[in-house]
Amino acid sequence: MPRQSLQPSRDPADYAFVHRLRTRFAETDAMGVVHHAAYLPYLEEARVEYLRSIGHPYDEVRGGEDGGEGAGGRDFPVLEVSVHYRQVLHFDDVVDVSLRVGAVTRTTFQIAYLLTVYGEPRATAVTVHGCVDRHGRPARLPGWVAAGSSART
Amino acid sequence: MPRQSLQPSRDPADYAFVHRLRTRFAETDAMGVVHHAAYLPYLEEARVEYLRSIGHPYDEVRGGEDGGEGAGGRDFPVLEVSVHYRQVLHFDDVVDVSLRVGAVTRTTFQIAYLLTVYGEPRATAVTVHGCVDRHGRPARLPGWVAAGSSART
Amino acid sequence: MPRQSLQPSRDPADYAFVHRLRTRFAETDAMGVVHHAAYLPYLEEARVEYLRSIGHPYDEVRGGEDGGEGAGGRDFPVLEVSVHYRQVLHFDDVVDVSLRVGAVTRTTFQIAYLLTVYGEPRATAVTVHGCVDRHGRPARLPGWVAAGSSART
Amino acid sequence: MPRQSLQPSRDPADYAFVHRLRTRFAETDAMGVVHHAAYLPYLEEARVEYLRSIGHPYDEVRGGEDGGEGAGGRDFPVLEVSVHYRQVLHFDDVVDVSLRVGAVTRTTFQIAYLLTVYGEPRATAVTVHGCVDRHGRPARLPGWVAAGSSART
Repeated sequence: MPRQSLQPSRDPADYAFVHRLRTRFAETDAMGVVHHAAYLPYLEEARVEYLRSIGHPYDEVRGGEDGGEGAGGRDFPVLEVSVHYRQVLHFDDVVDVSLRVGAVTRTTFQIAYLLTVYGEPRATAVTVHGCVDRHGRPARLPGWVAAGSSART
Repeated sequence: MPRQSLQPSRDPADYAFVHRLRTRFAETDAMGVVHHAAYLPYLEEARVEYLRSIGHPYDEVRGGEDGGEGAGGRDFPVLEVSVHYRQVLHFDDVVDVSLRVGAVTRTTFQIAYLLTVYGEPRATAVTVHGCVDRHGRPARLPGWVAAGSSART
Repeated sequence: MPRQSLQPSRDPADYAFVHRLRTRFAETDAMGVVHHAAYLPYLEEARVEYLRSIGHPYDEVRGGEDGGEGAGGRDFPVLEVSVHYRQVLHFDDVVDVSLRVGAVTRTTFQIAYLLTVYGEPRATAVTVHGCVDRHGRPARLPGWVAAGSSART
Repeated sequence: MPRQSLQPSRDPADYAFVHRLRTRFAETDAMGVVHHAAYLPYLEEARVEYLRSIGHPYDEVRGGEDGGEGAGGRDFPVLEVSVHYRQVLHFDDVVDVSLRVGAVTRTTFQIAYLLTVYGEPRATAVTVHGCVDRHGRPARLPGWVAAGSSART
């Protein structure tokens, strides 16, 4: 059973990748701030851009032939997520989502996230991912995932 | 090219089916009301309950063998939607979504909707649907769709 | 009662402004395409960027003092929306949302939209907006809205 | 700094309250299952129904005069959330969201959740909540929150 073990730092310098996005009005709620559920798609959007940045667009990871390592037919379902909301986000905020991969095992990996606005921490988060083939069966993680993980686990 | 032709009445008595739901806090926005995009899943939820009520759960419509009429393997993609927002919805409002099917052709049908809170109209809407097989190709509408349509088209 | 009167063209050259976004995995559904409700936040995101581009960020339109024209304290609620889905969008598609303002009256205006992927039309849409003050009362439209509207109404 | 300390049991009998809901098609994703972000509004919907069940509808908690204990003007923002996804949810699944309150302090409380379908565990979760007044300042938790917490913390 995977257990989230990463401790997300609040220093952007500790992260390997950063993706910038802007909050949407549709994501706010009647408290006048971004609803807490809206953060999960932010993390996902950053993951997708990270995979693209290292040459493994999620579309290719998911599609393609069910073959060898990195050859497609793989999915990385979210097994666990945790978010720590530190300061609220508002409509139209420009958010930098920093992330780094860590805690890689043969079949799972974790990602730590830091959300900042103009460098000020707003939230930290961790996701734990599995790896499944196109039939939903547990599969071995492609080698390039471990290669992208930071030593600071 | 289908064109929405139904005129949704503001009288609940003109509708064949009604589904009750409660708005979620997550669906509100920073104006303090339910965000306009949240209405589309309300219409969809009502459609799903309507199909169940006439003995054709959407799961069965979509799944099953790709066979004869009503035998599954069909999808009813939304080709057009229009919503007329008349009065705002708030968090925790109990909303009655009334609907009726109309304007059925060989390959499309339309649904008119009325959203009320304690009988008071809040929104009206129309969706236009196609019919496709499991490969996404246009397919003939199952006969039971037309059977469920009202004469008031 | 406002009625949508704009006819959205399928030629990007007919639009005054374009905003590019990328679809999210969270916005897809079990049909394997972007869910039809996800398009409404795309339109909204494009509107917000359009207002910013003409020097009236929505934050300023909404906030600030409730004063004269363009002085803030205004909201542009969506009174009507209609979307015509022409071709599906997939996960990770890069979507250009073109828009133009039209049909401006003393208290309402409309926006026509065209969504394209690599220039190929995927959807067209129209929104009708009112103008209210910070107490939700109908208010006169700031003059700069009309100034931004195209002659091709 | 609050830290989630509850350990959500996988036995529905360990929970004080249960709310039933049905997953929406709009909540599924291209993997054919309910998207992981959709679970957070499920937790929220269950919280809202729980508050109603103990005589403190969230609308009253948030609205009303900013007065004594339980007199309104309070909000319970989510400070932390964690979800453990154990088995996927599909479209149209009927989900029982069980919850219990625990780990109550002077200004925070936690809720443990279990999501089941026909008694089979699908996910567990914990939320940590603060208490703020209508100006967003930390406020003392109304006494009735502690009264509703279970001894099994």
